[in-house]
Amino acid sequence: MASVGVDSEVTRIMLAVNESSIKGYPHASISSKSAFEWTLNKIIRSNTSGFKLLFLHVQVPDEDGFDDVDSIYASPEDFKNLNRKDKINGSHLLEYFVNRSHDLGVACEAWVKKGDPKEVICHEVKRVQPDLLVVGCRGLGPFQRVFVGTVSEFCVKHCECPVVSIKRSAEETPHDPVDD
Amino acid sequence: MASVGVDSEVTRIMLAVNESSIKGYPHASISSKSAFEWTLNKIIRSNTSGFKLLFLHVQVPDEDGFDDVDSIYASPEDFKNLNRKDKINGSHLLEYFVNRSHDLGVACEAWVKKGDPKEVICHEVKRVQPDLLVVGCRGLGPFQRVFVGTVSEFCVKHCECPVVSIKRSAEETPHDPVDD
Repeated sequence: MASVGVDSEVTRIMLAVNESSIKGYPHASISSKSAFEWTLNKIIRSNTSGFKLLFLHVQVPDEDGFDDVDSIYASPEDFKNLNRKDKINGSHLLEYFVNRSHDLGVACEAWVKKGDPKEVICHEVKRVQPDLLVVGCRGLGPFQRVFVGTVSEFCVKHCECPVVSIKRSAEETPHDPVDD
Repeated sequence: MASVGVDSEVTRIMLAVNESSIKGYPHASISSKSAFEWTLNKIIRSNTSGFKLLFLHVQVPDEDGFDDVDSIYASPEDFKNLNRKDKINGSHLLEYFVNRSHDLGVACEAWVKKGDPKEVICHEVKRVQPDLLVVGCRGLGPFQRVFVGTVSEFCVKHCECPVVSIKRSAEETPHDPVDD
C-alpha cells in the first residue's frame, strides 16, 4: 500500500485568534475557540506529530489610546500601563492556546502583532507561509456584516494560502450575535 | 497526555471534482487533482483511517445537447450515445480518484449529479453534511473571473460547512489560464 505524505514535513496550520468582544471578559473569543477545537477534532485528530499550530493574535491599537473610562485623565504612566495591560491580555490569550496544544502533544508557536487584524494576518501569512489558515467567524447575516465587517471574508479573498473559516455553532452564539 | 478526537468518528471531506476543460482531454481538471493532492498530503497525511473522502462530480448538461461538431445532425440515437458518453466520462473521472484513494487506504464514496455545479455542490453539502468541502480553483485574477465565474467563490459564500479552496500552483497553470 502506498503511503500518504508520511515522510513529508509537518503541516503548518496558522490560527488567527482574538479576544472576546464581551466587556470584562479578557479571554479568547468564542469563534477563536471554535476554530481551534475544529482544527483539533477534525484535522489533527490523533495525528499530533503531523501538525504544527501557529497562533497569531493581532492586537488592535485603540484609536485614542484609552480603553476604559479611567483613562480619560491619562498620564504617560497610564499609557505605559495600558500598553503593559494590552500585552498581558495578548499573552494571556496565547497562553490558553499554547497550554492546550502542549497538553495534547501538538507542537506550536504563538506571537502577538499590533495593527489592523485583516492586514496583519495577510502579511504574516505571506511571511510565514502556512499550509492552511484557520479563522473563526461569527456567521453573521449580510445585514449585520455591513456594519461590523468581517476579517474572515477579507482573509479568504486576500491571503496567499488556503483559508478555511469556521462559523460558531448556533448554541454558542451569544444573545447579541455581534458579540463574540 | 490528553488525546485529540481519537475516538470520534472519521472526518468526512467532500471533494468537488470536475473534468478538464482542455479539448480532447477527458480527465480530471488540473485544479481537481491539486485539491485532491493537497488533501492527501496536508490533511490526511499518514492518518488514512481517520478520514473518509466523498467525491462529487457534477456534470453540466450541454445547452443544446451537443458537445462536438459531429452532433449537428443528431438523431435520438446520438443523444443516447452522448448521454452514455457523458456518463462514461463522469465515471472515468471518479474512477481515478476512487482508485487512488483505495491504493492509499483511504475510505471513500463517489457519485455523479447533473446540474449547475455551484447549486448542486451546495445542495449535496446540505444533504451529506461533510466536515469540510475542498474545491479546486484556477486562481484567476479579478478581470478573468468576471467572464468565467467561479464555483469556488460561490461555495465559500453559500455552502453550509467549512470550505477551503485550493489554487493551482503557478507551474501547473496551462498557457491559457482559463483552461483547467
